[in-house]
Amino acid sequence: MMDFKTYVTEKKALIDQRLGELLHTDVPQFTKLYDAMNYSLLAGGKRIRPILMLATLEALGKDTAPYVDVACALECIHSYSLIHDDLPAMDDDALRRGKPTNHVVYGEGMAILAGDGLLTFAFELMARQPLDPAKLAQCIAVFAKAAGPAGMVGGQAFDLLSEGNEAIGIDGLKLLHRMKTGIIFQGAIDLAAILGDAAPTQRALLETYARQMGLTFQITDDILDFTGDEAVLGKPVGSDAKNHKATYVTIFSLDEAKRMAGEAASAAIAATAPLGDKAWFLRDLVSYLLVRAN
Amino acid sequence: MMDFKTYVTEKKALIDQRLGELLHTDVPQFTKLYDAMNYSLLAGGKRIRPILMLATLEALGKDTAPYVDVACALECIHSYSLIHDDLPAMDDDALRRGKPTNHVVYGEGMAILAGDGLLTFAFELMARQPLDPAKLAQCIAVFAKAAGPAGMVGGQAFDLLSEGNEAIGIDGLKLLHRMKTGIIFQGAIDLAAILGDAAPTQRALLETYARQMGLTFQITDDILDFTGDEAVLGKPVGSDAKNHKATYVTIFSLDEAKRMAGEAASAAIAATAPLGDKAWFLRDLVSYLLVRAN
Repeated sequence: MMDFKTYVTEKKALIDQRLGELLHTDVPQFTKLYDAMNYSLLAGGKRIRPILMLATLEALGKDTAPYVDVACALECIHSYSLIHDDLPAMDDDALRRGKPTNHVVYGEGMAILAGDGLLTFAFELMARQPLDPAKLAQCIAVFAKAAGPAGMVGGQAFDLLSEGNEAIGIDGLKLLHRMKTGIIFQGAIDLAAILGDAAPTQRALLETYARQMGLTFQITDDILDFTGDEAVLGKPVGSDAKNHKATYVTIFSLDEAKRMAGEAASAAIAATAPLGDKAWFLRDLVSYLLVRAN
Repeated sequence: MMDFKTYVTEKKALIDQRLGELLHTDVPQFTKLYDAMNYSLLAGGKRIRPILMLATLEALGKDTAPYVDVACALECIHSYSLIHDDLPAMDDDALRRGKPTNHVVYGEGMAILAGDGLLTFAFELMARQPLDPAKLAQCIAVFAKAAGPAGMVGGQAFDLLSEGNEAIGIDGLKLLHRMKTGIIFQGAIDLAAILGDAAPTQRALLETYARQMGLTFQITDDILDFTGDEAVLGKPVGSDAKNHKATYVTIFSLDEAKRMAGEAASAAIAATAPLGDKAWFLRDLVSYLLVRAN
């Protein structure tokens, strides 16, 4: 069995290579837009969403090769969401992964269009795959719902309205985190379940895993914003507290947040047990998320 | 046979009714986002894209009832594009159809999200239709390509970069207009051709129609910006000239633009002749576009 780091490195290289091939244009008037899209798409993210999808397919005993482009489509949607989140009218962030954000480099209008372009292209990419069209249509419906106004975009809107308002409470915080990140992890796993023909019992296990893994991710993300190393994170530390954002650390405490993260991680790992050895990466991923915050 | 005005009124009522049912939420934290989306979606546009799609299906002898939601998805995408076009970082327009634009009412951040939400929802809506999944996947691939970076978003980016630059020339102008509007009319007609099982000869005719009809629309739009009645248009007249935008009127002349519009309209109408009586609306639509500019 491969170790966690090697698996991530190999899958990330596969995804990065394919992402680099996807977006090019022969129309000179469109070059700047494609540059702006590629600038953010190829800025070297962790590729956790596509890797999660591919690892779930492997946990179901499937070959991942036919599904790499669908995984890349998830990353396009993730990239669009970061570009729009960073805009002056939204979080107004000038740095992302240690580099100037899209609008700082290309201007606000072009950054909005780069996001629009990546989002729209993601659906084109999914729809044109030579896969079972019934499964494809289901994938698009499921993922668009997760990414859309009832999901991630809704979470962004709630975030925008509640910014500087620490009083959203634990229910508000849970909704916010579920919609901003959890629902996309869930979507990545749902796609693997659809494409990988998961049985109903497997689906139920994967749903539990997705929910608890997403929670682990979000709580540890909050912990890192509080305790992390700016040079490692590639973004300013303490920005949540400075912006009076509700987080697991500000609402509870650092210790309590760590306890909750541990609890979520245990529940996620337990859910994958019936999937056996093939689900090793799903388990190791959760352990990794937990360890990075300690 | 129904007359043009009655047909438009009936189809518009059908589309408006369905659009009004599509977007609602039970999550209180998402209400504002849904309000913002519905504000623009239900602002009473001409619904020309969905009507064009339904009319093309009828020209192919098909019942339109199963396809109304797909037509509505086209309008969601049109509505998203208007919201983002009007943003301060783009065209910076405060009025649209005689009403304050989305960002004026809901703020810039929420307007960006309302556009993102409508775009993403459109693909969910298409993908979840109980239609032949192979046709659905093809529709999504075709329409996402038309609306994406190689199409409408690319056109917007070119427009943004060439603003205030009258020197883009006739080739630049043609590319701009084709990408900003023509390609979406083409997309609406392509969807009808896919869903309505158009034969290859019918497809070729419809492609010619779409190209020439789009051209008619764009030239007459430029003419109206030059000669139109502000109260009727619901937006300021003469804004293109003021913003030093290249248009068919500024690059050629009013008379020459009128002649070109007439030529495109004739070619569009001629293309539909082999489709017979059932294509009457496609012909009347082109005549209407031409007449409104005179």
